[in-house]
Amino acid sequence: MSRTLITGGTVITASDEMAVDVLVEDGTVVALGVGQDWTADTVLDATGKYVIPGGVDAHTHMEMPFGGTYAADTFETGTRAAAWGGTTTIVDFAIQSVGGSLREGLDAWHAKAEGRCAIDYAFHMILADVNDSSLKEMEALVGEGVTSFKLFMAYPGVFYSDDGKILRAMQKGAETGALTMMHAENGIAIDVLVEQALARGETDPRVHGEVRRELLETEATHRAIKLAQVAGAPLYVVHLSARSALAEIAKARDEGYNAFAETCPQYLFLSTDDLARPGFEGAKYVCSTPLRPKDHQADLWRGLRTDDLSVVSTDHCPFCFTGQKEMGIGDFSKIPNGLPGVENRMDLLHQGVVDGHISRRRWIEIACATPARMFGLYPRKGTIAPGADADIVIYDPAATQVISAQTHHMAVDYSAYEGKQITGRVETVLSRGRVVIDGGAYHGRPGDGAYLRRDTCQYLR
Amino acid sequence: MSRTLITGGTVITASDEMAVDVLVEDGTVVALGVGQDWTADTVLDATGKYVIPGGVDAHTHMEMPFGGTYAADTFETGTRAAAWGGTTTIVDFAIQSVGGSLREGLDAWHAKAEGRCAIDYAFHMILADVNDSSLKEMEALVGEGVTSFKLFMAYPGVFYSDDGKILRAMQKGAETGALTMMHAENGIAIDVLVEQALARGETDPRVHGEVRRELLETEATHRAIKLAQVAGAPLYVVHLSARSALAEIAKARDEGYNAFAETCPQYLFLSTDDLARPGFEGAKYVCSTPLRPKDHQADLWRGLRTDDLSVVSTDHCPFCFTGQKEMGIGDFSKIPNGLPGVENRMDLLHQGVVDGHISRRRWIEIACATPARMFGLYPRKGTIAPGADADIVIYDPAATQVISAQTHHMAVDYSAYEGKQITGRVETVLSRGRVVIDGGAYHGRPGDGAYLRRDTCQYLR
Amino acid sequence: MSRTLITGGTVITASDEMAVDVLVEDGTVVALGVGQDWTADTVLDATGKYVIPGGVDAHTHMEMPFGGTYAADTFETGTRAAAWGGTTTIVDFAIQSVGGSLREGLDAWHAKAEGRCAIDYAFHMILADVNDSSLKEMEALVGEGVTSFKLFMAYPGVFYSDDGKILRAMQKGAETGALTMMHAENGIAIDVLVEQALARGETDPRVHGEVRRELLETEATHRAIKLAQVAGAPLYVVHLSARSALAEIAKARDEGYNAFAETCPQYLFLSTDDLARPGFEGAKYVCSTPLRPKDHQADLWRGLRTDDLSVVSTDHCPFCFTGQKEMGIGDFSKIPNGLPGVENRMDLLHQGVVDGHISRRRWIEIACATPARMFGLYPRKGTIAPGADADIVIYDPAATQVISAQTHHMAVDYSAYEGKQITGRVETVLSRGRVVIDGGAYHGRPGDGAYLRRDTCQYLR
Amino acid sequence: MSRTLITGGTVITASDEMAVDVLVEDGTVVALGVGQDWTADTVLDATGKYVIPGGVDAHTHMEMPFGGTYAADTFETGTRAAAWGGTTTIVDFAIQSVGGSLREGLDAWHAKAEGRCAIDYAFHMILADVNDSSLKEMEALVGEGVTSFKLFMAYPGVFYSDDGKILRAMQKGAETGALTMMHAENGIAIDVLVEQALARGETDPRVHGEVRRELLETEATHRAIKLAQVAGAPLYVVHLSARSALAEIAKARDEGYNAFAETCPQYLFLSTDDLARPGFEGAKYVCSTPLRPKDHQADLWRGLRTDDLSVVSTDHCPFCFTGQKEMGIGDFSKIPNGLPGVENRMDLLHQGVVDGHISRRRWIEIACATPARMFGLYPRKGTIAPGADADIVIYDPAATQVISAQTHHMAVDYSAYEGKQITGRVETVLSRGRVVIDGGAYHGRPGDGAYLRRDTCQYLR
Repeated sequence: MSRTLITGGTVITASDEMAVDVLVEDGTVVALGVGQDWTADTVLDATGKYVIPGGVDAHTHMEMPFGGTYAADTFETGTRAAAWGGTTTIVDFAIQSVGGSLREGLDAWHAKAEGRCAIDYAFHMILADVNDSSLKEMEALVGEGVTSFKLFMAYPGVFYSDDGKILRAMQKGAETGALTMMHAENGIAIDVLVEQALARGETDPRVHGEVRRELLETEATHRAIKLAQVAGAPLYVVHLSARSALAEIAKARDEGYNAFAETCPQYLFLSTDDLARPGFEGAKYVCSTPLRPKDHQADLWRGLRTDDLSVVSTDHCPFCFTGQKEMGIGDFSKIPNGLPGVENRMDLLHQGVVDGHISRRRWIEIACATPARMFGLYPRKGTIAPGADADIVIYDPAATQVISAQTHHMAVDYSAYEGKQITGRVETVLSRGRVVIDGGAYHGRPGDGAYLRRDTCQYLR
Repeated sequence: MSRTLITGGTVITASDEMAVDVLVEDGTVVALGVGQDWTADTVLDATGKYVIPGGVDAHTHMEMPFGGTYAADTFETGTRAAAWGGTTTIVDFAIQSVGGSLREGLDAWHAKAEGRCAIDYAFHMILADVNDSSLKEMEALVGEGVTSFKLFMAYPGVFYSDDGKILRAMQKGAETGALTMMHAENGIAIDVLVEQALARGETDPRVHGEVRRELLETEATHRAIKLAQVAGAPLYVVHLSARSALAEIAKARDEGYNAFAETCPQYLFLSTDDLARPGFEGAKYVCSTPLRPKDHQADLWRGLRTDDLSVVSTDHCPFCFTGQKEMGIGDFSKIPNGLPGVENRMDLLHQGVVDGHISRRRWIEIACATPARMFGLYPRKGTIAPGADADIVIYDPAATQVISAQTHHMAVDYSAYEGKQITGRVETVLSRGRVVIDGGAYHGRPGDGAYLRRDTCQYLR
Repeated sequence: MSRTLITGGTVITASDEMAVDVLVEDGTVVALGVGQDWTADTVLDATGKYVIPGGVDAHTHMEMPFGGTYAADTFETGTRAAAWGGTTTIVDFAIQSVGGSLREGLDAWHAKAEGRCAIDYAFHMILADVNDSSLKEMEALVGEGVTSFKLFMAYPGVFYSDDGKILRAMQKGAETGALTMMHAENGIAIDVLVEQALARGETDPRVHGEVRRELLETEATHRAIKLAQVAGAPLYVVHLSARSALAEIAKARDEGYNAFAETCPQYLFLSTDDLARPGFEGAKYVCSTPLRPKDHQADLWRGLRTDDLSVVSTDHCPFCFTGQKEMGIGDFSKIPNGLPGVENRMDLLHQGVVDGHISRRRWIEIACATPARMFGLYPRKGTIAPGADADIVIYDPAATQVISAQTHHMAVDYSAYEGKQITGRVETVLSRGRVVIDGGAYHGRPGDGAYLRRDTCQYLR
Repeated sequence: MSRTLITGGTVITASDEMAVDVLVEDGTVVALGVGQDWTADTVLDATGKYVIPGGVDAHTHMEMPFGGTYAADTFETGTRAAAWGGTTTIVDFAIQSVGGSLREGLDAWHAKAEGRCAIDYAFHMILADVNDSSLKEMEALVGEGVTSFKLFMAYPGVFYSDDGKILRAMQKGAETGALTMMHAENGIAIDVLVEQALARGETDPRVHGEVRRELLETEATHRAIKLAQVAGAPLYVVHLSARSALAEIAKARDEGYNAFAETCPQYLFLSTDDLARPGFEGAKYVCSTPLRPKDHQADLWRGLRTDDLSVVSTDHCPFCFTGQKEMGIGDFSKIPNGLPGVENRMDLLHQGVVDGHISRRRWIEIACATPARMFGLYPRKGTIAPGADADIVIYDPAATQVISAQTHHMAVDYSAYEGKQITGRVETVLSRGRVVIDGGAYHGRPGDGAYLRRDTCQYLR
């Protein structure tokens, strides 16, 4: 048995800030204490530092196929970058092919991930083809720890489900306890606007943000809520970016419905100004839902404070500028949708603490505890408590850094936050008790990370 | 030149109640006056009576094909029944076939109506197949006085348009000034619930009201509003029945959008209690949107008072119980959707005055003036003013009557209001100056009614 | 009997635009007609002009005592200026003194007005001292045609009533049919802010707008609504200026309550920018509620379109800059509150038509018909219909003018709209059939105007 | 040093449910652990039990003078009853007399409490006389750990402050970090209704609930929020009982304001039905804000789930039926306002868990953690974590009990919940490490409880 003791730091969880020592045996936290004479094989001095749970990023797309190419990070590079950024669990999306089974999709994703991950991982499942058979399969997958299913109101002809399919999948969610995740944009209407814009000769990345109208995110968010209410099912809206969509979630929550939403760092720090950068530079900022005008940011931060936004995930889906984003020169609709970010989330949100947008405890709640609870991983993940996995980050709140593609560890040739100064930096990362990041070096290897069977959502009320 | 003078009555318009005489020359009102010594060929004594504009029913379906049968009233029987009920203008719906042109549909409806109508008539157009060609045709039709186009979010495979088609039609509306009318129910989701109910063996008419969930009317109403906002187009929601759908309209109107809605007498006076009548009796009350629980009625009356509901039309679409409604025995989804009502609207709304729900002026506004304005017929129709068509009803506010299929003039074998007592009764009806109803007899003949080319909506703000 | 015929114009009422002739006998409209061969002693050619009802200004303060001085217009000068501006009826406020009876106040105002007015006039009553005796007097006054009573939530020590007094007065309103008018600002809280600002040495007119916080208008508006709901009484909020106060009214109206509000031209055309004019110039714009930031104007115009604002009155209460406004040099709280405007209202609102904010019919509705209905003067005032008083304005919609104290007829040494260009101008004004303004000259004399006994509010639903 | 070990239980905090052992040294929790071989002087076996933080009741009135009598519990009897019910901290209200200083009031309350309490206690301060001097004193009191000040919009002539005084006190709160607590009822208007009801001969306890209208709680809640926004100060509304008042809080919170509210067990479990009990029995249920109709209960539970209600306190203010409540026979306004409850809160809320209204963690959050944070006692109180005071309750979730005045420990002759069956019961209570309740016996003595200096509110965002 290996014992590790972390002393002198301030342990921060979603609910507490405590000057306590943390005792780890093998992969598990076994005790928190003050004034105890605990001994250990390894003692980590965290004096002046934060001791926080490892981040839980509930929305990543490693090696995801999109528009004829693949997201640039593999499970190996992507999870390693996550570890560098203080994230110790990801939940990635396995994908059902149209005409294919859930099983085939899930097997394929297991095959991509197994033996390659630096940190623990789990899967959601994208339902691209809702039918009697795939609905039946959902039951089995819930039993195997895949307890959340994502549907798309956008991308007709690719991932899109009509309202009847959505309703049926939600009904199955209500029956099994599975959580329905929703990409809420009216893709049918958006595609009309895309076609009309291209016909007018409007081809720049900027136009991506214009045709994916805020009203069409709001509409879809409202519709998803109403369908979920008809089904009696909980709902989790992914990558919410528009203030009026947030208002729909807030209204449903006020009325006591189990409606949840996540936003992403890109919506908190970037805007349509970035999409409108000169030349083709804007392509780096093409994702869906799109970036919104800058004044939406304050509303999203407020939503995080009021808990109308429950989680910040990354929607990490990186495409290189050269060769990938460039596929859309002359036609914005051909730009692969997605941004890199799995490495930057914990730091960017700490910057939100420094900037006064959220408290330290709320930082841990939206980045660690709530995603863990939401997706059935708590209290194993998302907190520091006796019995929890020893996924722990020693974080230096006073250090400064500059984000750059030169120094990041994601397998992509640009950073969406290039040059941004951040106060705070990950110093040491433990994944199930093992030190994987320390002293500016990576000490793990592919396969350290294990697959996590998840419970159903622990937030339903 | 023929001169008619109506004396001694109280003229009620949307804005005024006046003890004035009305002078008609040929088909036109030429003067209103007090204390003038006017002479006339015919003098109608309206002492103690109301003198009101003829009703404008903006939503009828004469001889409409539906589910393998036809609405039971022809233009001849239906417009005659309208006249008996104090309505002197109808706007019926010409229908585009899927794969067919608007022109073909409109020509067919002209052929059905021409030479047969007892009162003046106009047409909306149902867009069942939105494509480049039919969008182009819309422009021509607006020029011919068909200035409103109805789309369906319900009835997949029949009239249904997806959100992209709806958006494109609305854009054309914004461009041409045409008004988009919407059947706002999420038919895609409803059809899933229908199929599931039938699979559970639930086949009674009552189930029709259960599967067409209030939430799915509300959802569709919200979606129609958002799509109209994207298109920059006005919107008119037909046969609104649910209080929460009304709330969506009210919100849009508060924000200054050109969103309008009508309700129908059946939603003000009937309820799911009627749908749940024993045996197959409930089939008489099957229409879509469906009847709602009784407590929605107070909200709809309030909406009429607050002008969040602008118009009361009938959605007159009668099917005989014997042979037609009976097609749905054992499968509620086979019951033809629709109720008779064109003859009862003015009386039922007057009952609303008697019951204290609305004022006399509001009665005329929602039944005559606003539908005329909304559909470009004002001031020729909908008011009594010099220059207007002499479509005038002398109404006895103190008479009483009992509604019954025994005595009504619609070509349908039941009344949805059988046995209901009404205070108020039509005494005399002038259509463009000719007395068509008087002394309990019909004095007109088929072909009296003329086709009306309409202007675009006069209510946009 | 004298007969006047107005030919060739477009008659505009709240509900209609008609190319009709108007026949007047003595002081009354007796007929409207088209193509009739009417003869008359006087024929006024209105070709190319609008023929509109004379304006009804429901909120004026002639000779009002305030802060140790008097509003500069007497009933003679003020009503003459009103006539010049196309207004043919005013409703002024008689004032109860603290400790005095309603009767004394009303008698005093009758004495000021009688024999002096150029146009017809009526009275509201300000309740400054609610007690058993004054509540009892309310009943008698309603019988005499004083059917509306104004209360103040502002001006502690002067007009202020506490919530208990307000509630009791509202209960009496519910009992008698009288309408409660409310100055809705939390004067108790405002006075704290005034005192603190002065203590900080902030003495400029600009500060008047800062201490009378929008939130405190909104609060008081909400409170007035709730108290009215407790009393079961209708409510009319005067001079609403803040968008969030408007939202409170809109919400109450959506819920079906009899809550009404007026705004004034100054809130539609002026802003805190005017209050902040250099030197002491801002004093010209000191009124309460205060002017708001410019971006509130669009919301107020929208409120006029959506009928959440029902009326535009002037709150005409003029104080000369020299000698009166100057009393507040060095202490903004000593500046007499009020602006001149009775002469400019019809023109400024027509400018709103020209600018596309409202329709022509809505112009007449908010300036003539609704104030007449609201305060029990309809259909005698506020419309052009057989039986109505012949208060008629021939208005040239194409003429242009520049507003200036050099040319206006109000007895005040400045104009709040100095230099503003207006499209539209009053050409001829009839007051009960007599031409009082025509050819750029005033043809009436003091005492032409008669006192009007009013009915109770005709808008309650 | 004394060591206590609690083993085998499920530790429940606001954020976690953990099967861990709790190690206490003297009065402090020093470690939580799993699988550790800790030794102790005392070992408490909590197998099958919950181990929860001692309750924090943030709203009690021991020995409070009201209407000529005193609340029946002294600090000795009241805090002992609290301990019996699993509450280990109370925050009571010291009262400023009109004309008196804060210091005098606080000294008086210290004198009543010192040496008599069974558990720890702290003070809020009631501001009955806001003036320059008492505002100045607020600063000193914040320094001494009295960091929250209660104002009354009700009880004119007793505790009532007008809006100017409220605003000034709130401004001082914004300046010092003190939290303003508000009794939000429009007492000025209520007193009019009271007087009118009595004049009509309506004297029963039932009338107390009728005159204290829901609308007047809602109004006052809205006003308090707006005044707090003007002051830039946080707000905590006490004993919220009406669903529409809750809606005002929810709206303010959605907008990101620091507006908080508590409700009380009586509003969750009792209703106007109790006030209307026959005879004078209803007097037992007279408190202000009053009990509301039964259907408000579901909304309050929902508010607790959505965190629009943050805290459940008791407003413990007991008056004996005999001799005290009876003072109001023949005049409901003479009934002392208040209910006993300090002993029942933890149990009643656990019943809410059993009934499915709230989760176990939420139970602890609203009853322990949030009140501790809200009033500056966290993490010393309200949680179980290393470093916290060892205020711990071992709670048997399966035991059953029946509430009765026969068995309760409060010094009052009736129970508002007489005969109510509860699932769950306090087994053992530790106050700062000492066992005060165990084996059905009280083991402490007066003076065990210490005065707590509080920090300012820890919830501001």
